[in-house]
Amino acid sequence: MRIFLINTGTELLLGDVRDAHLSFIAQQILQFGLRIEEQRTVLDGPAIQTTLTDIFPKSDLIFVTGGLGPTSDDITRDLVAELLGLPLVRDENVLQAITERLRKRNIRMTDSILRQADAPEGAQILPNRSGTAPGLFLPAGINPSLPSPHLFLLPGPPRELQPMFKEFVMPIVQSLLEGAQMVKRKLYKIANMGESVVETMVGAKLLAIPGLEVGYCARPGEVDLRIVGNPAQMEAGDAVITESLAEFVFTTTDETLEEVIVHCLKKQGHTLAIAESCTGGLLAHRITNVPGASDVFLAGYVTYSNTAKTDILQVEPNLIQEHGAVSAEVASVMAENARKRSGSSFSLATTGIAGPGGGNEAKPVGTVFVGMAWANAPATAQRFFFPTDRETFKQMVAQAAFELLRKQLIAGDGAKGKFSLR
Amino acid sequence: MRIFLINTGTELLLGDVRDAHLSFIAQQILQFGLRIEEQRTVLDGPAIQTTLTDIFPKSDLIFVTGGLGPTSDDITRDLVAELLGLPLVRDENVLQAITERLRKRNIRMTDSILRQADAPEGAQILPNRSGTAPGLFLPAGINPSLPSPHLFLLPGPPRELQPMFKEFVMPIVQSLLEGAQMVKRKLYKIANMGESVVETMVGAKLLAIPGLEVGYCARPGEVDLRIVGNPAQMEAGDAVITESLAEFVFTTTDETLEEVIVHCLKKQGHTLAIAESCTGGLLAHRITNVPGASDVFLAGYVTYSNTAKTDILQVEPNLIQEHGAVSAEVASVMAENARKRSGSSFSLATTGIAGPGGGNEAKPVGTVFVGMAWANAPATAQRFFFPTDRETFKQMVAQAAFELLRKQLIAGDGAKGKFSLR
Repeated sequence: MRIFLINTGTELLLGDVRDAHLSFIAQQILQFGLRIEEQRTVLDGPAIQTTLTDIFPKSDLIFVTGGLGPTSDDITRDLVAELLGLPLVRDENVLQAITERLRKRNIRMTDSILRQADAPEGAQILPNRSGTAPGLFLPAGINPSLPSPHLFLLPGPPRELQPMFKEFVMPIVQSLLEGAQMVKRKLYKIANMGESVVETMVGAKLLAIPGLEVGYCARPGEVDLRIVGNPAQMEAGDAVITESLAEFVFTTTDETLEEVIVHCLKKQGHTLAIAESCTGGLLAHRITNVPGASDVFLAGYVTYSNTAKTDILQVEPNLIQEHGAVSAEVASVMAENARKRSGSSFSLATTGIAGPGGGNEAKPVGTVFVGMAWANAPATAQRFFFPTDRETFKQMVAQAAFELLRKQLIAGDGAKGKFSLR
Repeated sequence: MRIFLINTGTELLLGDVRDAHLSFIAQQILQFGLRIEEQRTVLDGPAIQTTLTDIFPKSDLIFVTGGLGPTSDDITRDLVAELLGLPLVRDENVLQAITERLRKRNIRMTDSILRQADAPEGAQILPNRSGTAPGLFLPAGINPSLPSPHLFLLPGPPRELQPMFKEFVMPIVQSLLEGAQMVKRKLYKIANMGESVVETMVGAKLLAIPGLEVGYCARPGEVDLRIVGNPAQMEAGDAVITESLAEFVFTTTDETLEEVIVHCLKKQGHTLAIAESCTGGLLAHRITNVPGASDVFLAGYVTYSNTAKTDILQVEPNLIQEHGAVSAEVASVMAENARKRSGSSFSLATTGIAGPGGGNEAKPVGTVFVGMAWANAPATAQRFFFPTDRETFKQMVAQAAFELLRKQLIAGDGAKGKFSLR
């Protein structure tokens, strides 16, 4: 099934609003193994007709968003009716729903609001529980004398479109599918490894599976590897990835690395403290983005100055003097003392040079030490090098630190009893 | 000038990633009074050629994003070269830049990485300071035997595309405009005020200026008000905004609120400490995103648990018992003791209920107290209510806290000597 999405709206093309429909609709229909082949953003106005005329012959289903409201630039409904040679007919149920909605809100009915109760003859109404303008479904060939694909007209505001899509659009799409071949999709998220390293490990073997689609999406400190195919292709692809990358994949769902960590800590009855210098609070921020973080996260210490490192985490000035604030020694002590001070079972610590200033030959900008401590074992520290801009550096350090902790938690979970809470 | 944007990337059409390029590029070129006529998202692969062939005759300039990287799905460069009948030529400068970048990171050169140094003959290289793949500019009619519009090929990751666009693409676009009528654009950023409040204050007066374009862009805790017009229209618009909103506008440049604060603290010789409960490190994270933050930011205390509040910030358990951890009293003490402990001249503190759990009737989810302290004055706290999702809540609290501090710093700067460092 060839599916297209058309977003109408001058505000999108001016950059005032960021589109949310493509990702939402794509994720919804992927549940049926369907995908969007192409998406276009066009101006409100005649461009809608031109674009539909262009896409009609190559599509089986088109979603059109926006332009159903009461203002003068909302003309999608009229343009589609005209294009398909269908008269607009007032729908009494919609009229009643709109009247009721206005009455509750003490808003006066106007001609422009009334227009929203009009629908091209033969279209199916999709009720709007969060606004006035209903959605419309025009099945393929609605006008027998003009070939057309299935057509959904949907409201522009995401808070109206999204519930309507789930409740009314999804069942219609499913009914259109009956017996069609479905493709599957699987995502593998890998932290702290470069895109080209991931490809070197599995790329050739995945490309050798006929018909399997492979995609990589890189973000700071993370690669999302994606495969799409029929069940046999997927099984072969999954086997390749599991063989080469299993220990590096932190999730195959939409979870973030911090969600994986919070859930893992919770499941194992562990708690966490974080001592940050160069990441300046980012690790704590990301952990506390996870609902329920307060069950496992006790305290964060953003010891940006050396004085704060000594005051809060008892890092001896001598140690800083001897090894530098950016050193394995200081990272280890920060981790160890954060754990002790907070009473947590695990701790992470970061100290490094985010730049643009502060580097030298032995420790250039991008150098960082990540410390980790847990009960009944000496604290450790690992050196990394991320020469990049300041914000990306912080994200990459966070990924490296979280991945160290995740591996330790997985190892601890495997060898039951290896860790004990004090 | 008819401008089109083509986003390539299967990950966009699968809904894994939300496009950020349309809004960014639209806002950039609006500075020259230019707009995007249509945007399309297409699959990696032959669709790129089909789409370009379709758009070539109706466009003067096309931006293509994505597909320039090292992996097997990155084939934009090859497809465009083929379409335009241009051979790919290895660029020695790019090769050297990539080699240097890999050397620094201890990454082995591979054939797939090497491909990024190839460019269609005659294309202008746009250096990539944040990644390996350079952008490319192919001027109109680059192959005299095949008509083509101006063509920019740009990298997919926003953190690579955005600086490249500002530094290299904008001057080229400007040079193409020569003599065309230019409109101006001005941006006013306002923190901690709703979009509709801003519009109530200036909207009618701005709309009364003939020909002036007015736009609002709302994000959590911030409204960006934009006016576009010729010099006379701009002067009239600026007068309206200055009269009604001057004290609320924190910048008319691209600066973030945290940048304004760090620069203001630095200029005034002040330092900052931050105590966070509900924001979980976000304030510290944002402040430390600013280069040079270490000159003014001393320490952050993420006292997520009550025990941590008592241990680090000496918040008496009795005070928490009596007023609750989410209270003006606790916010004030957190701020005061963070300032004293760190030895800073200013401090901010946050304590609130981010949700989804934890609310009650007197203090529902979304309730937050922001504390502020400075030398020679008692600490204060202010109550806010941001009933929204967890991450938006954190951002709105950060905006509210930073705006409180900004106003205090401005007031202090105006009445010189009002603040003194201890």
